[in-house]
Amino acid sequence: MSKGKYAADISSIQEAYTRIKSYVIKTPIISSTSLDDISRRQLYFKCENFQKSGAFKFRGACNAVFSLPDEAISKGVITHSSGNHAAALSLAAKLRGVPAYIVVPNNAPTCKVENIKRYDGRVNFSETNMRSRIEVANKLRQEIGAILIPSSNDGRIMSGQGTISLEILEQAPKIDTIVVPISGGGMLAGVALAAKAINPAIRILGAEPKGADDAARSKAAGRIITLRETDTIADGLRAFLGDVTWPVVRDLVDDIIVVEDTEIIKAMKLCFNILKIVVEPSAAIGLAAVLSNTFQKNPAWKDSKHVGIVVSGGNVDMNLF
Amino acid sequence: MSKGKYAADISSIQEAYTRIKSYVIKTPIISSTSLDDISRRQLYFKCENFQKSGAFKFRGACNAVFSLPDEAISKGVITHSSGNHAAALSLAAKLRGVPAYIVVPNNAPTCKVENIKRYDGRVNFSETNMRSRIEVANKLRQEIGAILIPSSNDGRIMSGQGTISLEILEQAPKIDTIVVPISGGGMLAGVALAAKAINPAIRILGAEPKGADDAARSKAAGRIITLRETDTIADGLRAFLGDVTWPVVRDLVDDIIVVEDTEIIKAMKLCFNILKIVVEPSAAIGLAAVLSNTFQKNPAWKDSKHVGIVVSGGNVDMNLF
Repeated sequence: MSKGKYAADISSIQEAYTRIKSYVIKTPIISSTSLDDISRRQLYFKCENFQKSGAFKFRGACNAVFSLPDEAISKGVITHSSGNHAAALSLAAKLRGVPAYIVVPNNAPTCKVENIKRYDGRVNFSETNMRSRIEVANKLRQEIGAILIPSSNDGRIMSGQGTISLEILEQAPKIDTIVVPISGGGMLAGVALAAKAINPAIRILGAEPKGADDAARSKAAGRIITLRETDTIADGLRAFLGDVTWPVVRDLVDDIIVVEDTEIIKAMKLCFNILKIVVEPSAAIGLAAVLSNTFQKNPAWKDSKHVGIVVSGGNVDMNLF
Repeated sequence: MSKGKYAADISSIQEAYTRIKSYVIKTPIISSTSLDDISRRQLYFKCENFQKSGAFKFRGACNAVFSLPDEAISKGVITHSSGNHAAALSLAAKLRGVPAYIVVPNNAPTCKVENIKRYDGRVNFSETNMRSRIEVANKLRQEIGAILIPSSNDGRIMSGQGTISLEILEQAPKIDTIVVPISGGGMLAGVALAAKAINPAIRILGAEPKGADDAARSKAAGRIITLRETDTIADGLRAFLGDVTWPVVRDLVDDIIVVEDTEIIKAMKLCFNILKIVVEPSAAIGLAAVLSNTFQKNPAWKDSKHVGIVVSGGNVDMNLF
């Protein structure tokens, strides 16, 4: 199956939707005239915080897990991620009836470990550095024969996340712009591929925290830039672009809006007080981007009148509030 | 226009829907397999916390305000309520282009006063006792000529709140039971009237806090019982049944489930952590009722398989969490 230039395309995204449709929640879009007034746009919040496992990650994980043949997946799946992908993969594997092995750094917050265990994911602790995480994962792969499912840099993951666009454009056909948080770029790439295939005129914007702005730097440089360290409250947005996601972000994403953590926190409060939804910091960044000066004062984006915002997840500790 | 036995009926509710449809949000229904598992039912959460002004109260207020002739309403509307009805009435009046005068006890929390002002409601303070509130309201009525819109005990209000049933039964036709918070009874009566007219077999249950259980006592006694004092975290559920709402609650509501405040708090946490929605205590009571022993252990309700729960509002101070 040829995908043309990229590891996913509209066909693989439509196939993914057929595959995962009965497992995922078709999440609602909600609106608020108060936030429309503040942003001077019509905003459409796609509530992936209501998705199974509490985040959009379930779409990609589900597509990867259900696209593998029985034999290939019989020993289970494995990933090294302590975040939403880990919980999503655990749930997808559970639905497929195979084990999920999750490599978690030994300093991961309890609530994240609990979230993995809730879906019967098998937690294996590693040291906190990436090298140890990969080592533990490789050891498990060799011993058990489980298949590694990356969290982002993977065509099946991109195709699964791209199904968000299919739903958004059906639920709110007026949308002319979609704002998507960017971390590893799987969701942004998938959303861009599907949306531009349906409507090439649609504007696709990434939203990225200042303390982890590798995508904005990469776009500016025309090549993948990674950072030595990241510093942001948006714990889900600390990953970097990879070779699978980068070409799509380079070619099909119109721009990346970089926001400060203070703007993210303000947007979280607006989500709580006005939208009445629970969002994690990474999920509030789309609203933060739309309210930012960067977006509001860009004359080229004045025609972004109907703006879809992907609210990516709601897995946040109550104590953060 | 005859309403038969009660101050509202399916016709007045359908008329209300035609009247308010372009102003209200058709709020989504959300679900969670985790909560389905815990409750051993399929649960359908009707998210009136996403309603304009943050609560279902906007439906009734909107119906009352838009059903009055221009001349009658030209001097504005008035109410003595510091809660969701006050904010809802302020917004409805604003949309109609007339002033809303809100009598607020001088000890009302700042966030509630802010909520009224956000929609240009004109705040008039009274002493904290009901006598003073009524006195201030009456004085304003006489001076200004504004029309009093009660928060609950009123046919137009009941009709407006009844539109919730029209939406629920269209959005989730499988529903066999609806659980509704009860305070003054306007929503419970409206929901019961509409739902039983559409499907007489549907079970309608009220959910009431132990510290304000006048409705349960009234049902048991066969007449309106009021309490000398109330004590519950569910600040929206402290009002009592009135002569307009009581006959409907008496005849059409199958039962009232009484829950403890501790159960309400537990349900609020589940709404936050699992449903990812912000709810006020009064809005979490439906889930609390469905998870209670009273509901779970009643053999007569084993056949309540598809349970609609009205999540009434999301106006809660972030500091409560």
